[in-house]
Amino acid sequence: MIKTVVTGLLCAAAALTAGILIGHYGIDKSSDSAPSWVKDVSKDVDENLLEELLSQVDNNRIQENLRELSKTPHMATTVGDEQTVQLMLNRWRDPETGLDRVWREEYMVYLSFPDPDKPNKVTVVNASNAVLHTVREKEKAYTADQEDPAVVQSYAAYSPAGQVQGKLVYANYGSAYDYWLLNQTMNLKDTIAITKYGGTGRADKAINAAPYGISGVLVYTDPLDMNDGFMSDNNETYPHSWYMPPSGTERGAFSSIYGDPLTPYLAAKEKTYRIPEEKITGIPPIPIQPIGYEDAYTLICELGGGQAPVEWQGAFNCTYNVGGPGFRPSSAFNNSDVKLAVFNNGQLKNSSNVMGVIRGSVEPDRYVIYGNHRDSWVHGAIDPGSGTSVMLELTRVLGKALKQGKWRPRRSIIFASWGAEEFGLIGSSEYTEQYLTKLSERTVAYINVDVAVQGNASLQASGMPSLQNVIFKAAKQVKAPGMDSMSVYDKWIRYANRTSPVYGPIPSFGYLTGAGSDYAPFVHYLGITSLDISYTFDRTKTRSRIYPAYHTAYDTFDYSAKFIDPGFYIHQAVGKTAGSVLVRLADSLVLPLNCSDYAESLEDYLSVALLIYEDQLLAHNISMEPIKRAVANFRSAASNLDKVIRSSDLANETPLKVRKINDQLMLLDRAFLNPVGSPSKFRHVIWAPLEVTMNTFPGLSDTYVQAMSSGTPAAWSQVHLLVSVMSQAIDGAAQMLLDVI
Amino acid sequence: MIKTVVTGLLCAAAALTAGILIGHYGIDKSSDSAPSWVKDVSKDVDENLLEELLSQVDNNRIQENLRELSKTPHMATTVGDEQTVQLMLNRWRDPETGLDRVWREEYMVYLSFPDPDKPNKVTVVNASNAVLHTVREKEKAYTADQEDPAVVQSYAAYSPAGQVQGKLVYANYGSAYDYWLLNQTMNLKDTIAITKYGGTGRADKAINAAPYGISGVLVYTDPLDMNDGFMSDNNETYPHSWYMPPSGTERGAFSSIYGDPLTPYLAAKEKTYRIPEEKITGIPPIPIQPIGYEDAYTLICELGGGQAPVEWQGAFNCTYNVGGPGFRPSSAFNNSDVKLAVFNNGQLKNSSNVMGVIRGSVEPDRYVIYGNHRDSWVHGAIDPGSGTSVMLELTRVLGKALKQGKWRPRRSIIFASWGAEEFGLIGSSEYTEQYLTKLSERTVAYINVDVAVQGNASLQASGMPSLQNVIFKAAKQVKAPGMDSMSVYDKWIRYANRTSPVYGPIPSFGYLTGAGSDYAPFVHYLGITSLDISYTFDRTKTRSRIYPAYHTAYDTFDYSAKFIDPGFYIHQAVGKTAGSVLVRLADSLVLPLNCSDYAESLEDYLSVALLIYEDQLLAHNISMEPIKRAVANFRSAASNLDKVIRSSDLANETPLKVRKINDQLMLLDRAFLNPVGSPSKFRHVIWAPLEVTMNTFPGLSDTYVQAMSSGTPAAWSQVHLLVSVMSQAIDGAAQMLLDVI
Repeated sequence: MIKTVVTGLLCAAAALTAGILIGHYGIDKSSDSAPSWVKDVSKDVDENLLEELLSQVDNNRIQENLRELSKTPHMATTVGDEQTVQLMLNRWRDPETGLDRVWREEYMVYLSFPDPDKPNKVTVVNASNAVLHTVREKEKAYTADQEDPAVVQSYAAYSPAGQVQGKLVYANYGSAYDYWLLNQTMNLKDTIAITKYGGTGRADKAINAAPYGISGVLVYTDPLDMNDGFMSDNNETYPHSWYMPPSGTERGAFSSIYGDPLTPYLAAKEKTYRIPEEKITGIPPIPIQPIGYEDAYTLICELGGGQAPVEWQGAFNCTYNVGGPGFRPSSAFNNSDVKLAVFNNGQLKNSSNVMGVIRGSVEPDRYVIYGNHRDSWVHGAIDPGSGTSVMLELTRVLGKALKQGKWRPRRSIIFASWGAEEFGLIGSSEYTEQYLTKLSERTVAYINVDVAVQGNASLQASGMPSLQNVIFKAAKQVKAPGMDSMSVYDKWIRYANRTSPVYGPIPSFGYLTGAGSDYAPFVHYLGITSLDISYTFDRTKTRSRIYPAYHTAYDTFDYSAKFIDPGFYIHQAVGKTAGSVLVRLADSLVLPLNCSDYAESLEDYLSVALLIYEDQLLAHNISMEPIKRAVANFRSAASNLDKVIRSSDLANETPLKVRKINDQLMLLDRAFLNPVGSPSKFRHVIWAPLEVTMNTFPGLSDTYVQAMSSGTPAAWSQVHLLVSVMSQAIDGAAQMLLDVI
Repeated sequence: MIKTVVTGLLCAAAALTAGILIGHYGIDKSSDSAPSWVKDVSKDVDENLLEELLSQVDNNRIQENLRELSKTPHMATTVGDEQTVQLMLNRWRDPETGLDRVWREEYMVYLSFPDPDKPNKVTVVNASNAVLHTVREKEKAYTADQEDPAVVQSYAAYSPAGQVQGKLVYANYGSAYDYWLLNQTMNLKDTIAITKYGGTGRADKAINAAPYGISGVLVYTDPLDMNDGFMSDNNETYPHSWYMPPSGTERGAFSSIYGDPLTPYLAAKEKTYRIPEEKITGIPPIPIQPIGYEDAYTLICELGGGQAPVEWQGAFNCTYNVGGPGFRPSSAFNNSDVKLAVFNNGQLKNSSNVMGVIRGSVEPDRYVIYGNHRDSWVHGAIDPGSGTSVMLELTRVLGKALKQGKWRPRRSIIFASWGAEEFGLIGSSEYTEQYLTKLSERTVAYINVDVAVQGNASLQASGMPSLQNVIFKAAKQVKAPGMDSMSVYDKWIRYANRTSPVYGPIPSFGYLTGAGSDYAPFVHYLGITSLDISYTFDRTKTRSRIYPAYHTAYDTFDYSAKFIDPGFYIHQAVGKTAGSVLVRLADSLVLPLNCSDYAESLEDYLSVALLIYEDQLLAHNISMEPIKRAVANFRSAASNLDKVIRSSDLANETPLKVRKINDQLMLLDRAFLNPVGSPSKFRHVIWAPLEVTMNTFPGLSDTYVQAMSSGTPAAWSQVHLLVSVMSQAIDGAAQMLLDVI
C-alpha cells in the first residue's frame, strides 16, 4: 500500500511536473507571448561589437587607399575623376566587404576651366608692349607625379575670361575696407590689383574691386600667412618641410554661392531649366588669377607709391608699397603695366556622386549620412584623399561585418562620395535639392570627413551643439596615436578647450557657421544636424590657416606620408572616432543628440547679444524680450525632455514612445530654418554664415552692424525683423522639444 | 486495485491538469511574454464604437448650439466675438463632455473697420453739390435681431479711407478685361465705377480699376447672379424665401493675401516686427464700397453712354449702359456725380483662436486637426455658425466618450475655433506661422467644416485626392436626411459625379485650389493633406453661386431654420460624416490616405497639360519628358506601396513598420512645396490658386498663358522653370512613397 501510495504520489508528481512543463512550454500563449520583433525594436548600441569593429580599422589599408586615390590628378569630371568613381563603385560593391546597394548619380553642372591650349597669362609689359616678366604658368615639380600633364594650371574657377592691363596696385586682402582705404589715396580706375589669400572669400577680392573700376585682380599666398615666413625651396619649403614652395599656387572656386550656379534650388538634370550665365550671382565680375609668391615677390617689391599700412606688410624682405599706381621709377618695370589674360570657359559637365547604403534593420526610414567629396584640384592626397581613404576603410570594416551577418544597423546608413565639391559643394547641393523632402524628413544627422588629417596635434570638430556629447564619447574611446595613455579626447582638451557652466573644462567643439565643405547644404539648406571632423596641427606653433599644400600641386601622397601622418596612425584614429560616432548615431535606441547642450549654446549667443546690442536696440524701440523668452522656453523644454529620457525605461516601453522622442531630437534643427529669408540657401538662423565676426546670432549681428553704420529706419527695421524671425525660430525649436500635445 | 488505479489515474490526471494550469498561468514567462503595449499599438478603428458615437450626434443639440452662437453679431474682436470665445471655452472645458486641454491663443492683428460715428456714404450730388440720392447705410430689418446695434455697416474691409467723386461708369465684374474693354470707349480718369460681385476676387475690382485713374469703386450683388432674378421683398425675397432682400449687401475682406497683413511669415505677437501699412500688398489702392442692389438699380438704370455688352447685362428691368461717363441727359441725375466717402480705419486688435486637444493614446505626436472659424460678419448663422454648431456637437460626443473612459484616439486630435477668418483667414494663418515646423512634422490631416450646411441637396467635399477614399467611406456610413434608404454617398453621386478609370462612376470630389477658408494655410503654406466639407443646394435649380444671405445681415438663425435646414437633420448628417472621417483618421492603424488616388489626379492633370501645351512647349525647346517621367514614377511608387499595405499583416508587425508607411503617406504632400517660389504663402505646386482656369497644373497653365500672350523669351523661361519645379516636386513626392532606402 505504501508502495502504491508512493508510486501514486510519484506518478502524480511526475504528472504535475509534466503538466507544468506542457503548460509552460507546450501551449502556445499566442494571445500574449511576445512577437519576435519586441526584442529587435529595443536593441541599443552593442559596445563590445563596436569595440571589435573599431579595432579592425587599419592604418596600412588607409595608406594604400590613399596611394590609390591620389595616384593621378582627379579634378571634377576629368578622366582621373572617373577612375575614382570606378574605384568607389568597386570597393562598395565588393561581395565580401561591400554595402547593400551602390549606385552613381549624375548631374549636369556648370563648371569653369582654363583653356589647356591657351593658358592664362600674367606678364609685365612696358610702354612699347615688350614683355619684361612672365609669371610662371605651372608650379615647379619636385616629384614625378607633379609632372603629370593632368595637373591643371592654377586658375580662379568662375573668373570671367578677359584680357586686361593696367598699373599695378597692392590691395592687401582685397576686402571692401582695403579697397576703400586704397581709394583714399589714388584713382583705382583701370588698375590691376594684387591681393593676398585670406581675410575675405575668394570671389570677394574681385567683387569688392569692380566698383572702383579696377580691371583685374591677382591673388597669391603671402609666406607670412601660410609659411611662417619661410620662402626658400633650397632648404625651407617642400620637399624639405610641409611649407608651400615659391611657385605654389592655391586654386579654388571663386564663387560665394554653393551648388550648380545655373540651377538654384533645382537638381541639375539634363532638361532642367537653367538661368542664363549672365544671371549667375556671387562670382567675379572682372578677371582674377592666382599666382605663386615667388612672382608676387617680383611684382610687389617693385611697386611705387606710398608705403602700405603696417598691417598690410607681409613676409617679403621689402617694403610693400601701394603702387604709384604702378612700379616705382627706379624699377626696371618703371611705367610698365601688368597684363592679365584669362581664358577660362564655362562648361556643362556630367558630375557623379557615388552613393552606397546599408539598410537599417529596425528603422530603415531613418538615415545617418556619412560623406566626403571625391574630386580634388590636383592629386588631393589630403583634400579630399585623407577623408576618402578613411571612409573606404570604414565601409570595408562595416561592410564586412554586414556580409558576415554580424551586424546590421538599427537605422539606415547612406555613404556619399560627392562630385565637384571644389567648384562649390555641387554634388552634395544637387543631392539635397533633388531629395529635399525625403532627406529633411528622415535624416538623423550628416557626418562630413573631408580633410580628415592635416596635422598631428588634435582632433578638431564642429557641428550642432547637440552632437557635442557623442563626439566626446567617441573621442574618449579612441587612443591618440603614439601616446598609450592618452585618448583622442585627452589630446583635444589639452589643445583647445573652454569651460562650460555645466561640464567644467571640455574640448572646444566648434560651430558650423561657414560653407567650407559638403556639410553646408545639409546645415544651411535642410537644417539637418551635422558634424565635421578633422585632425589638425598645433596652431600655437604656426600661423598657417590651413596645411600649406592646400589646393596646390604639392598635396600629394608623398607630402602626406612624409609631413602630415607618417604611418597613417592619425588617419586611423580619425577613422575610429568617426566610426564610433557613426555607429552610435545609427544604433542607439535613443538618439545621442543632447538638446540641453544646444540650449547652452543659445544662452551663450544670447548673453553676448544682450551685452552688445540690447541698449541700442531699446533706443530704437526694439525689444529683446521675445528672444529672451524663446531661449528660456528652449532651455526649459530641453531640461524636461532630458528628464523624461533619463527617467524612462525606454527599452521596455512602446517603440513609438522612443520614436516620438527621437523625432523630437532629430527634427529640432528643422525649426531653425528661416521662413522669411527663403529663397536663400542659407536658411538656418543660428548658423548662417556671418558677414561680421561676433560670437552671437549671425543674422542679428550682420543687420545690427548695417543699422549702426547706415542709421536708416529701414536698416533698423531689418534688425527688428531679424529679432522676430529668430525669436519665432527658437521658440519653434522649443515647441519641438515640449511634450508633444 | 482497480479503484486504486482509477484513483491514481484521476489523481495523476488532476495533477497533470493542475500542472498544466500552473505551468501556463502560474509561471511568469517574463522573458517572452508580450508587454502590455503590444496590443495597444496594433489597435485599429473600432467600427462598433464609431457607429455608437455617430448615433449620438443630435440634431436638436446642433440647433440649440446654433441658436446660442448666432444670437448676437460677433464680428472678429468685438464683444460678441468674446462671448463666443467664452462659449467655446466653457463647452470644451465641461467636466463631463470636455476635452483634455483647452486654451485661447491671442494674436495682435491688423483689421479694418468702418467708423461707427462716421458711416461710409454714397450719394448722388449735382453740380451745386445738392444731394439727389443717398444710398442706404444699413440693410432693412425684417426680424428683431437685424435691429441689433452691433450689426456692422456694410463695408469693404481694407478699402482705404477717402472721399472721392466723379461720373459713374458701369464696369461689369471689374475684371482686368472688363476695364480694358470699357477704356476702349471712354476716358475713365476720375470716374467712379460700379461693379458686380463675382467673376474676380473682391480686391481685384479696385486693383484693376486704379491703373485707369478711376477714383473709386462701388460693388453690388446683381439679382441675376444670386437671386435667380427675384428682387421684390413683398413676396419674393427673404423673409419669403432664401433670396437676398433688395438692401442686402455682401461684406468681405478686400484682400488677395491671407494672414495678418502686417506680419507675413511671422505670428503676430505683440512685439513682432510689422511692415509699414503702406507696404501691404494685395489690397485696394482706391476706395471701394459695397451697396445693395436696390440702390444699384437706381444708379445703373439712370446711366448714359452706350449700351453695355450683352454679357454685361443683369437682372434689372432696364438696359445697362456703360455711362457717359455719368448719367443720361434725360435722368434726374443728369450731370451729377457719384460721391463716395469711406471712413474705414485700420486697427491692431487682439484676436483669439480657441484650441482644444484630445491626447492620442498610442501616437500622441501625430495630429488630426479639425477646425472652423468663429468670427462672422453679422450673426453668421450659416457662415460660420453651421460649422461651429456641428463642431460643438462632435466635441460633446467625443468628449463624453473620453470622460467616460470608453474611447481615446490612437492619435491626438486638435480642435480649433479660429479667429478673424473673415478678414483673411487670419487666426489659422498666424497659427501655422507660429507652429510651422511642429505642425508640418506631425499633422496627418486638416479637416475644415466652415459653411457646413448651405442647402439640402448633397454633400460637397474637396481635398487632396488621397482623402477621397475616407470621405467616401464616411458618406456611405451616414444616412441622407429624409430618405431612409439612401446614404449621403448615394445622394452625392446622384448630384455630382464623374467616371474614374479605376472605380467607374463615383461622386465628384473637388480640389482645394482656392483660398476660401481656413484650409488655405494648411494646404498652401504647410502642404498638409486637407479636406473641406459642406452640404450644398442643387445647382441645377438656381444660379446662386452661394446661399443668398452670405455675408449679409440676413444670415441668421431664423434664415437657416426656415430656408436651409428645418429640423437640423442635414447639420446632423454633416456632423456624422465629418465625425466618421475624423475618427478614421485618428484611429486607423494604417492611415486611410490613398496615394494611388493621388496618382490618378496627377495623371488627369498631365493628360490635359500634354494635350494643350506639349506642342507649343516643344516648339520653344521645352521638353515635358521630365514631368511625364515624374508622374509615371509617382504612379509606380504608389502602386507598390499600396501592394505592400495590402499584402502585409501590419497588425502583427513591428509598430515601426506601420509608422514608416504612415509617415510616407502623411508626408507625401510636403514634397509638393515649391522651394523656388518661396517666400510665397502659395507653395503647393499642385493646388496653388489658378489665375487661369484650366483643369491642370495651375502654375504651368498660368505661366503658359503669360508666355503665349507676351511671347517673350523671359516668359517662356518661366514656363520651363515651372516644368522643372513641378517635375522635381512630383518626383520628390514619388520618392516619399518609394521603398525608404
